[in-house]
Amino acid sequence: MKAHALFILLLSGYLQAYGQSSDEAFIRKIFDEALARGKAYEMLDYLCTTIGPRLSGSPGAAASVEWTRHIMQRHGFDSVWLQPVMVPHWVRGKKEIGRIVNSKKLGMQEVNVCALGNSVGTGAAGVLANVIEVKSWDELKALGEKNALRGKIVFYNRPMDPKLLQMFASYGGAVDQRANGASEAAKYGAVGAIVRSMGVNPEDYPHTGSLRYALNVPKIPAIAIATRHADLLSELLKDDKDLKFYMETHCEQLPDAPSFNVIGELKGTQFPDEIIVVGGHLDSWDLGQGAHDDGTGCIQSIEVLRIFKALGYKPKRTIRAVMFMNEENGLRGGVEYARQAELKREKHIAAMESDRGGFTPRGFTMPTDPKAKEKIRSWKPLLEPYGLTDFGQEGGGADISPLAPQGVPLMGFLPDSQRYFNYHHTPEDTFDKVDKRELELGAASMAALIYLIDQYGLK
Amino acid sequence: MKAHALFILLLSGYLQAYGQSSDEAFIRKIFDEALARGKAYEMLDYLCTTIGPRLSGSPGAAASVEWTRHIMQRHGFDSVWLQPVMVPHWVRGKKEIGRIVNSKKLGMQEVNVCALGNSVGTGAAGVLANVIEVKSWDELKALGEKNALRGKIVFYNRPMDPKLLQMFASYGGAVDQRANGASEAAKYGAVGAIVRSMGVNPEDYPHTGSLRYALNVPKIPAIAIATRHADLLSELLKDDKDLKFYMETHCEQLPDAPSFNVIGELKGTQFPDEIIVVGGHLDSWDLGQGAHDDGTGCIQSIEVLRIFKALGYKPKRTIRAVMFMNEENGLRGGVEYARQAELKREKHIAAMESDRGGFTPRGFTMPTDPKAKEKIRSWKPLLEPYGLTDFGQEGGGADISPLAPQGVPLMGFLPDSQRYFNYHHTPEDTFDKVDKRELELGAASMAALIYLIDQYGLK
Repeated sequence: MKAHALFILLLSGYLQAYGQSSDEAFIRKIFDEALARGKAYEMLDYLCTTIGPRLSGSPGAAASVEWTRHIMQRHGFDSVWLQPVMVPHWVRGKKEIGRIVNSKKLGMQEVNVCALGNSVGTGAAGVLANVIEVKSWDELKALGEKNALRGKIVFYNRPMDPKLLQMFASYGGAVDQRANGASEAAKYGAVGAIVRSMGVNPEDYPHTGSLRYALNVPKIPAIAIATRHADLLSELLKDDKDLKFYMETHCEQLPDAPSFNVIGELKGTQFPDEIIVVGGHLDSWDLGQGAHDDGTGCIQSIEVLRIFKALGYKPKRTIRAVMFMNEENGLRGGVEYARQAELKREKHIAAMESDRGGFTPRGFTMPTDPKAKEKIRSWKPLLEPYGLTDFGQEGGGADISPLAPQGVPLMGFLPDSQRYFNYHHTPEDTFDKVDKRELELGAASMAALIYLIDQYGLK
Repeated sequence: MKAHALFILLLSGYLQAYGQSSDEAFIRKIFDEALARGKAYEMLDYLCTTIGPRLSGSPGAAASVEWTRHIMQRHGFDSVWLQPVMVPHWVRGKKEIGRIVNSKKLGMQEVNVCALGNSVGTGAAGVLANVIEVKSWDELKALGEKNALRGKIVFYNRPMDPKLLQMFASYGGAVDQRANGASEAAKYGAVGAIVRSMGVNPEDYPHTGSLRYALNVPKIPAIAIATRHADLLSELLKDDKDLKFYMETHCEQLPDAPSFNVIGELKGTQFPDEIIVVGGHLDSWDLGQGAHDDGTGCIQSIEVLRIFKALGYKPKRTIRAVMFMNEENGLRGGVEYARQAELKREKHIAAMESDRGGFTPRGFTMPTDPKAKEKIRSWKPLLEPYGLTDFGQEGGGADISPLAPQGVPLMGFLPDSQRYFNYHHTPEDTFDKVDKRELELGAASMAALIYLIDQYGLK
């Protein structure tokens, strides 16, 4: 080996080791800032308890747009702007009624229900009908083909599997009932749908969430029922085939309304055209305060940029915090963001979403691109000391998914999932369910990975 | 290589692989049982909300002894018995008063305080004195040597460090003030001690916990103050050296009282004389319900044996669930258990404690013995799929620590620590703070490691 080749080799080893140790030190600073001087918790407090729920098209959503713009300006980000987008405007209306009417055992019995998002309402007349319980699509089909569902209310009662370790997998195995149950039942002449709430525990409150109506099928009203009441209804149905159920909902779909994605950025100093997105969705369901879904993701994204500012870090690339509008019932914000990125030929080198709650960090979900994945995994030694050990799953998040066709590596912040579905889409999703340190650790974890991507890219 | 050597090598490889896969399958069964048919949550509900707080010597402690004996008998464990032990009997008495008396800014201001465990009370006369704030022992010593503490109340206000990742490390860096503050101040003639609560967040409620009086030093009364009020008091003291504080506590130490460790066991089928202990402490502080500290550890230990029974597992070794009495203010149960083990020449091959709350499992703390440690770490591939990735720390737990001189390998269940000190020793340590799945995952994790130790030992 020639002397200068040896020198270069030694130098490169030195620089690598130096890089590693200065990265280690900077990541430590990120965590110190988040844990000792963090602003995430007080920001989330305001978003949840002063502004409150933020369903697309609602006054709360409009207030949250104005406030997140304001707060990002106040933190002194380089630019902050609103990206207009038209959103669906569904309203729940008067409190729903769910009632078992003529149980042999209990007579009349109120149960806790709520309309599913996007559902048509029953109106004041309500729907009164016999109930048929099903646990699978095959069962539904068999009953439907025997004409046993005509004029009936179909009760989808397949629970989330408690044996799965990852709660999102458990959710994924049951949420098809909520998404498609109404239309699938309507195909066979059913007049309403009741869906077991997407909660894994016995609970007294229902979980809302979107349904999708299929084209050319009558739109029938659909409600979620609290898991305890789903169990009760199922028990009663066992020897009471004449049992009737009354549902009354006053929800309706209004004309689309104007709204916005809210974007704040720190301009890159070396590669300003290379954009790294970190985001969550600003809209929420109307029943709680949208704390874990997804106030935490929005606030953590703002906090990532605030931490960089506070530490005097000048990013090489442009780092954007994006509050997407309308993830819950339309994804219009995510779609519009990707459309504008394409129109403007913006070069996004990475996008990270936080939409799994503000719980203790466990790791990140990975891009599908093997090279990007490998690069992120090479940083594990820098991240593991902070409890970030899970780099095994793929995926990004709903809002950033429309960027996939542009080849953007997508990833997700991966917190502990055990408590998420206690709160998701329920009146329980409130600020007091978020732990200050868990929230802060999430923001710091996200900042650490964004920092490494900013430093080294994903190529 | 001779043919029969090759054969033996292949056979041993086969047996190892077979062992691994049958262990994998059995551990999966343990988790399924805990998550789908677990009894931990309903047991904990009873212990916390029906029985409630269980300070040593209290009626609640006596009730919990009877109830855990009953529940272990009902689960059909092979033997269940009580091990008598005399315990300290400290009582809090009437609600404490903490009052800033003559603040220049606020005049009179009530603050939230509680007596520290083992403290003498002030009685109805209370203690009224000027306050001197200190953040370190050096500061205390310097002031004491200048005779500046005589007749004063010393206010220990060194916070838990929020920058540490492991909350027990943060606690460890501050709890010396609570344990030793009263006597150290009394050495210099102080008449009372106020200790900043052992909580990392801004909180409105105080944290109790034990102090230790040094020999031959006057016993002065000591209280904990809520972290928010510690900050307030510190702020006021900045330019108000004449500020006085009034504390009134009615606690007292009564004569020792009879109580019990509660023990249930499954008898070993191959090595009945080899004992594996899994336990927590049954006593708790009086302010909350002793949910995370340490109802969860007791219930998880019972659940470990219940799971084995439910799965029809016949352990090779004897597995004991031990509910230790009096961890909080005396450790008498742990000491007596170890004394009896030595007297009876029992052979304990391992002891595991769960006393860090019922949160999502992260791993286990390790025995100091390198061989035992290495053996446990060799099982990581079987445990990591359940999120058990942290095997880096050493330690067991307070109750099992008296077994150390007998050479017993000690280990601890290691859950996520972020939320523990929101609840620890406070009125907030109640059943509703425990998540069902997190509790169940903890029980299953403990059962998995106990199973492996039962199968393979730690030698």
